[in-house]
Amino acid sequence: LARIAVDAMGGDLAPRSPVAGALLAVGELPPEHTIVLVGRTAVIQEELDRLAAVDPSGAASARDRISIVEAPDVIEMSDRPTTAIRGKPLSSMVVGLKLHAAEKVDAFVSAGNTGAQMASSVFLLKLHHGLTRPAIAAMIPTLRRPVVLVDAGANVDCSAEELVQFARLGSVYAEDILGRPDPAVGLLSNGEEEEKGNSAVKEAHKLLVHAGLNFIGNVEGRDILSAGSARGALDVVVCDGFVGNVLLKFYESVPELIFRMLTAAGVTQDLLTHTFEGFDYSDYGGAPLLGVKGISIISHGSSSPRAVKNAIRVAVRAVESRMNDHIGRRLGHAAVTSV
Amino acid sequence: LARIAVDAMGGDLAPRSPVAGALLAVGELPPEHTIVLVGRTAVIQEELDRLAAVDPSGAASARDRISIVEAPDVIEMSDRPTTAIRGKPLSSMVVGLKLHAAEKVDAFVSAGNTGAQMASSVFLLKLHHGLTRPAIAAMIPTLRRPVVLVDAGANVDCSAEELVQFARLGSVYAEDILGRPDPAVGLLSNGEEEEKGNSAVKEAHKLLVHAGLNFIGNVEGRDILSAGSARGALDVVVCDGFVGNVLLKFYESVPELIFRMLTAAGVTQDLLTHTFEGFDYSDYGGAPLLGVKGISIISHGSSSPRAVKNAIRVAVRAVESRMNDHIGRRLGHAAVTSV
Repeated sequence: LARIAVDAMGGDLAPRSPVAGALLAVGELPPEHTIVLVGRTAVIQEELDRLAAVDPSGAASARDRISIVEAPDVIEMSDRPTTAIRGKPLSSMVVGLKLHAAEKVDAFVSAGNTGAQMASSVFLLKLHHGLTRPAIAAMIPTLRRPVVLVDAGANVDCSAEELVQFARLGSVYAEDILGRPDPAVGLLSNGEEEEKGNSAVKEAHKLLVHAGLNFIGNVEGRDILSAGSARGALDVVVCDGFVGNVLLKFYESVPELIFRMLTAAGVTQDLLTHTFEGFDYSDYGGAPLLGVKGISIISHGSSSPRAVKNAIRVAVRAVESRMNDHIGRRLGHAAVTSV
Repeated sequence: LARIAVDAMGGDLAPRSPVAGALLAVGELPPEHTIVLVGRTAVIQEELDRLAAVDPSGAASARDRISIVEAPDVIEMSDRPTTAIRGKPLSSMVVGLKLHAAEKVDAFVSAGNTGAQMASSVFLLKLHHGLTRPAIAAMIPTLRRPVVLVDAGANVDCSAEELVQFARLGSVYAEDILGRPDPAVGLLSNGEEEEKGNSAVKEAHKLLVHAGLNFIGNVEGRDILSAGSARGALDVVVCDGFVGNVLLKFYESVPELIFRMLTAAGVTQDLLTHTFEGFDYSDYGGAPLLGVKGISIISHGSSSPRAVKNAIRVAVRAVESRMNDHIGRRLGHAAVTSV
């Protein structure tokens, strides 16, 4: 049984996308799971009514599994992260995360201001013992199976110790959410040899060898899409959030290039859409903010209803697999063994 | 008139690729340009004879434009960079760069050990005044026109001042080699806002505003392939060599993904090859090591004859455009104005 709070006011397409995404989710998820939409009640109700008029049966069956919690204020995409907590305590994001901190819900999902969600999540949910920062885990579609990239953008300047923390967090994520036992962890660098890397990466390499993880060494940019180098499988790619952000945004721009060039060459849009189906970002929907004592799922600002629905599914899986307990235990264990 | 020294022993496919590439180059270039193949004379001569047997007329017309300079030793791909100068003074790389330093040739091209080529180039040719490091300029094919990425891998830990140096170097390169007047320079970051970036990038942003370049601000990973953000064109992307290396290697792995998925979906190999022709790395062939007082062109270790030929063409263009003088003057000017 998972109770998921969804920020109904967050994202470029709110409230439409979060509300429609919640309806899609209750249609797909087993009946024990429920959703709390957080935001301006009148606006949310209006959107629910509008959608009920389009699909009366779906809306009726969903009604007793979706509730609303009032939050009169909204954090804008342009607001500074600290504004969220200090300036807008009645915003949908802060109210939603407080519901989670008070254990009224088991997870929080938002397509709103990412910086504000990170800051509020750390402030309200707190970090697990032994961590200095949270990290975003993004899923990268590859030729074989998705690879987890941590950090995808939460931290721009990272120490070697923080890179090791990301490796631990990513490892639990891959195990719990992707069902990969003993996930293979690679450290992104500018060469496979252990002496390659910037100073933080070189130091992290040394620490990772003794971290008790399935560390396969450095991996290069070219190893990601093949989901592994010559040395075998790859489940988790560790990098700082600056590199992670640049790489992910670059990757997201590749489909447009492919589509434009190939449709110009006469390949049909249908064939391309079908072929690259698994590469659609909204298949994954949400990237969890790992390291906080709770489940805070970050969605793209431009999330479609389908993307929000999938973000909710990621949240449910995180709750069901008890990912958060596992992270706490893994970090506690690491702290003990490294003393 | 350009005299180009080519490392006949450098690269995974040497001596075949460098020798065949030199022959292709003299076939294409105007007759005033000549090539010096540097390496083991007997091996090079044997390869020239073999190619002459295949194409007698091409070889005959080329004979008086290709000469050989003996260098008995070879730097292996696995040798440490410093080994080159200290341990192998008679290697093809060191002998070739010494020819250039002595002004016997105007440029040097190699597909050999990149680290050794960088170290030897800095040691033998020296850096331009005001520079602390050289940088590699790589050409990235995009939907519109190629974009220059500096640094593509020469420096893993970079200061803000070094990022500004890369911007100056890349700007002259785009102007002289790509013929772009007043090239638009973007700083790669994790957001367009000037406050985004790791600490070196944030500091570099401030310096670039007053650097006398056509600085368009931060660009994101997604702006590269569209050759520009909403703000307009983009000619030069500045980043540290760690990020540049990861990004380039990632990009180089994308075609395999596209080809595998689309041929599995029934699209013909021919159509794909034709559509993505301009995206073939060997179209560019060589990335110049900018900042040294000379022209040192770095080619992929796996360069084909066509790639070597194109690297020679890049060298010729650099000589003809007097790129090196321009870099020296631009840096001298920058040094004066910033005092």
